[in-house]
Amino acid sequence: MSRFTTFAALRDACLAAPDGDDAAEAAVRARQSVLTKPPGSLGRLEDLVAWTARWQQRAMPRLDSVDVIIFAGNHGVVARGVSPYPQAVTAQMVANFEAGGAAINQLAANAGARLRVVPLDLETPTADIVEAPALSEAEFLAAVTTGYESVPETCDLLCVGEMGIGNTTIAAAVAAGLFGGGGMRWVGRGTGLDPAGIVRKRAVVDAALARHEAVLNDPLRLAAALGGRELAAMLGAVLAARHLHVPVLLDGFVTTAAAAPLAVVREGLLAHTTLAHISGEPGHFGLSLALGLSPLLDLGMRLGEGSGAALAVPLLRGALACHTGMASFTEAGVSNRS
Amino acid sequence: MSRFTTFAALRDACLAAPDGDDAAEAAVRARQSVLTKPPGSLGRLEDLVAWTARWQQRAMPRLDSVDVIIFAGNHGVVARGVSPYPQAVTAQMVANFEAGGAAINQLAANAGARLRVVPLDLETPTADIVEAPALSEAEFLAAVTTGYESVPETCDLLCVGEMGIGNTTIAAAVAAGLFGGGGMRWVGRGTGLDPAGIVRKRAVVDAALARHEAVLNDPLRLAAALGGRELAAMLGAVLAARHLHVPVLLDGFVTTAAAAPLAVVREGLLAHTTLAHISGEPGHFGLSLALGLSPLLDLGMRLGEGSGAALAVPLLRGALACHTGMASFTEAGVSNRS
Repeated sequence: MSRFTTFAALRDACLAAPDGDDAAEAAVRARQSVLTKPPGSLGRLEDLVAWTARWQQRAMPRLDSVDVIIFAGNHGVVARGVSPYPQAVTAQMVANFEAGGAAINQLAANAGARLRVVPLDLETPTADIVEAPALSEAEFLAAVTTGYESVPETCDLLCVGEMGIGNTTIAAAVAAGLFGGGGMRWVGRGTGLDPAGIVRKRAVVDAALARHEAVLNDPLRLAAALGGRELAAMLGAVLAARHLHVPVLLDGFVTTAAAAPLAVVREGLLAHTTLAHISGEPGHFGLSLALGLSPLLDLGMRLGEGSGAALAVPLLRGALACHTGMASFTEAGVSNRS
Repeated sequence: MSRFTTFAALRDACLAAPDGDDAAEAAVRARQSVLTKPPGSLGRLEDLVAWTARWQQRAMPRLDSVDVIIFAGNHGVVARGVSPYPQAVTAQMVANFEAGGAAINQLAANAGARLRVVPLDLETPTADIVEAPALSEAEFLAAVTTGYESVPETCDLLCVGEMGIGNTTIAAAVAAGLFGGGGMRWVGRGTGLDPAGIVRKRAVVDAALARHEAVLNDPLRLAAALGGRELAAMLGAVLAARHLHVPVLLDGFVTTAAAAPLAVVREGLLAHTTLAHISGEPGHFGLSLALGLSPLLDLGMRLGEGSGAALAVPLLRGALACHTGMASFTEAGVSNRS
């Protein structure tokens, strides 16, 4: 049974999501001003602590329980030759995640995070977006619900990631549908497409946009028509995190595209997210600009799996460690500015 | 007794430093090509592993023993009003490091690193660089030797940091002396100087450059005349790391300025260093360009203490964890590109 039974119910859940805690953020700023460092000298680390406090609703935020959740899905559009890897790789990589052999397994351990994988009907790819809506309303809402219900209430920080052969095509279609510009603007190499493949992939995105023109003004219908199950689940997880007071680290191009419809439904609905990194996939830069998200890392990564989000967790741990562990000028007997 | 008894002996040690291990780097690249990810999709993380292997001379690099060393010094130029904090803060912050209350204590713990503080004759500030050489040849070489001998032979990665009220003025003078441009180009707010203070600080740098014009074409004499004890010690530590096959994470503006003379003595002598972050202090950007160093992080930090270097350690740990822990396509039964 789906938590969200109609697009309208999901939209209502977006509009009802809580705002941040001004008092917790103010408490962080007050404490920062007395710690033994020049004001503002920890730069963005100070902002990260304030942001975490704001969305956790805690003046002393914590990262005791960090979750990385990877959502996996398959896509009918793969039949059009938009990826150099066969569709079977999605399930094979899910098995690799479960066996501990993928990059995200190592990066989640490095982050002190729990890793979970949520495969979504891998044996039933979505419809080819050039020909039909990827998902029906019911299918879309079922995937959103799966994602929504995957977020533990006890989570202190959620990292969202994905696996799905063909899903940079899907992400490009969603981004183009939301923000305009077509395949030329949003399509990149994905896992390593050759130049002829990129031309093909752009045409696929443009054809899909033409096919679904009627729903492009409705971000949730758009997400069903041009998206995929793992993207829908990520949208649900990011929305659940907002309701549960859990800050979120977004990962790469596909993850950001999956969450983007929320910001179009309601301005500020991604304020509880921080963009962990900017991907080497060029459309990600455009999405970061469209959404006003400033990345923590810029290391040319383009793997997905939540790898960039997990890599950024120790930065947040470092920021919080400074905030909770540092002495004040008075405690340390250090002279303040003259 | 100083390890280096003359500028010439130090210069010889620079010229004699070993190069990197091509075979270890090639072994890393070969292994990266079979791991379960699209080629190159871990971006700069892959380069970091290759770099670590090259300078550790190990095909499977490791980070079992990571050291953060903070060098502290005092500067006669402080009498000219170039810092909003009194000189006593240098020793007070050394006590704060030893008591565990500073940002670097928290960030070193977050990095799984050992922290050591090396104060250099804090009760005897260097001479005012506007009036005289900061250090005599013997004083300079003694500080270089202290830094050189502080690096443990068993170290897998060295993070270099500093503390010294007034040392962004010193760093600006060294950078200007090495790369030209004067106070206007290299002076910033430091710990938070007001606009009138910045004008004063620029004039101090320009006066020091004029006073020591005769030695600006000799990077080691320049480092003695315009530098300081903690900068000299950092130069020694970075040189020792090269001889001991220890890769180095450089921190901010002062640390980078301290190491910069090495790259002028011999091109490529900083190849075993990676710039951990780009500081909010504007001269740091100029130094990164002059030295061809590309930062890992850009978070607006401007604290010193090795804080940016320590914050970057978990990124390197994540990169190495992927390299050592991931399965190959064959091991995981994942199909490679079609």
